[in-house]
Amino acid sequence: MLDKNNKSVANLINVQGDSRYVIICEHASKHIPHRYHNLGLTDAQVERHIGWDIGAQGVAEHLSTLLNSPLILQTQSRLLYDCNRPPSSKGAIAEISEQTVIPGNNNLSDLQKQARADDIYYPFHQSVTHLLDDRKARIDSIIVTIHSFNPVYNGRERTVDMGIINDQDPRWAQDLTLAAAQFKGISVKLNEPYSALDGVTHTLQLHGRARQLDNVMIEIKNDLIAGPKEQLLFAQMLAKLLQENVPKTNTCPT
Amino acid sequence: MLDKNNKSVANLINVQGDSRYVIICEHASKHIPHRYHNLGLTDAQVERHIGWDIGAQGVAEHLSTLLNSPLILQTQSRLLYDCNRPPSSKGAIAEISEQTVIPGNNNLSDLQKQARADDIYYPFHQSVTHLLDDRKARIDSIIVTIHSFNPVYNGRERTVDMGIINDQDPRWAQDLTLAAAQFKGISVKLNEPYSALDGVTHTLQLHGRARQLDNVMIEIKNDLIAGPKEQLLFAQMLAKLLQENVPKTNTCPT
Repeated sequence: MLDKNNKSVANLINVQGDSRYVIICEHASKHIPHRYHNLGLTDAQVERHIGWDIGAQGVAEHLSTLLNSPLILQTQSRLLYDCNRPPSSKGAIAEISEQTVIPGNNNLSDLQKQARADDIYYPFHQSVTHLLDDRKARIDSIIVTIHSFNPVYNGRERTVDMGIINDQDPRWAQDLTLAAAQFKGISVKLNEPYSALDGVTHTLQLHGRARQLDNVMIEIKNDLIAGPKEQLLFAQMLAKLLQENVPKTNTCPT
Repeated sequence: MLDKNNKSVANLINVQGDSRYVIICEHASKHIPHRYHNLGLTDAQVERHIGWDIGAQGVAEHLSTLLNSPLILQTQSRLLYDCNRPPSSKGAIAEISEQTVIPGNNNLSDLQKQARADDIYYPFHQSVTHLLDDRKARIDSIIVTIHSFNPVYNGRERTVDMGIINDQDPRWAQDLTLAAAQFKGISVKLNEPYSALDGVTHTLQLHGRARQLDNVMIEIKNDLIAGPKEQLLFAQMLAKLLQENVPKTNTCPT
């Protein structure tokens, strides 16, 4: 759980929480340790969506409190290593992210790439694995990952406010999407603005599908969760949705 | 219920709603009918807090839906007549509002002032009276007024996010304030940023105290309810608070 520099890459919160839900936030942090020299970027560039999922950590923390769920937060920027991507993926260590060249990620040797995965990816997911192993005997875990997205993409305003994204089995995500119609005025859609076909369900596959645990990814438009109070209000809506719509069965196909 | 120009000054929504709660929003609208020539103000001035309670209508409408409550919305700007003030009050037709002189409210004759009250104040409150009379035989109504306030006052940021303001009997407002501690990160305080001593409980007195109905005024910092989605999220929090904390008894002292 500790990388070579003895800095934890996974911050585990409320591990004894007795909810079936386990919350994972792979893009919680914009932190880049000093030795990476900001990957050649300005602070302003890192603070944009490319560095982290703006607002996601706050929502995830409130959700953890409201549901009494364990929460696993990534503690380093996804620009170093995107923990929702396998080491084989080009997107794991992005050379370009949304038109911004990441100088510190270009021309890395295979050894350097391997070191990033060893430092960040493997210990982060080992933390999740240990947590799920520990819970296995006493509770059927359900995996929920919390992400956020930019309101504007390629110059166009996105109309969806919250996306519910499934990996292989769409049933629970469909139920959640239907139930979210109660939140009139908040546009909640299935598999928008991303879907599994965009390669965004790696964490769900690794910890949900592989263990036959129900799982879903939540994507929130980041202008709705810009401040800490907005994050609490949004988390309360999400907590209500999850509390009222526990998956009917643990029946993910393998 | 219609003023002399046949324009309703009270918009009644969900009058058959079977909740005990009746929602009143005296400062819902910034509308100034054409014949008043904007009271000599620019549109930008009217759109500021002096013209209306920014965001309050949206929160009140969602609350009406979530609780299945009747809702009474004022449909004209409080600059014409502040329906939360009696005709005897200087603040009913403000000559100056927060450092802004209101040209169209200065040098009014007694007859002109009387006409404003006749056009706006009396028909608005008659609408509330008729609604409460109609419900009296079948349900104990509880009065909740919804207001909003500016985040900055006299150059200082206000630290309270939501105020719960009582008229004469503080008990239910105290219970609500204590229960609101569940919303961690949202600062909820009793009788802030205003209290009955500031003369803001006229509607509560007129319709609550006079009928011995429980009543409370809710004041929300307007930057938390700036957009329609934020209004829904805030209303959900408020609905939860009201649903879980119905007043224990109808025991307002007379």
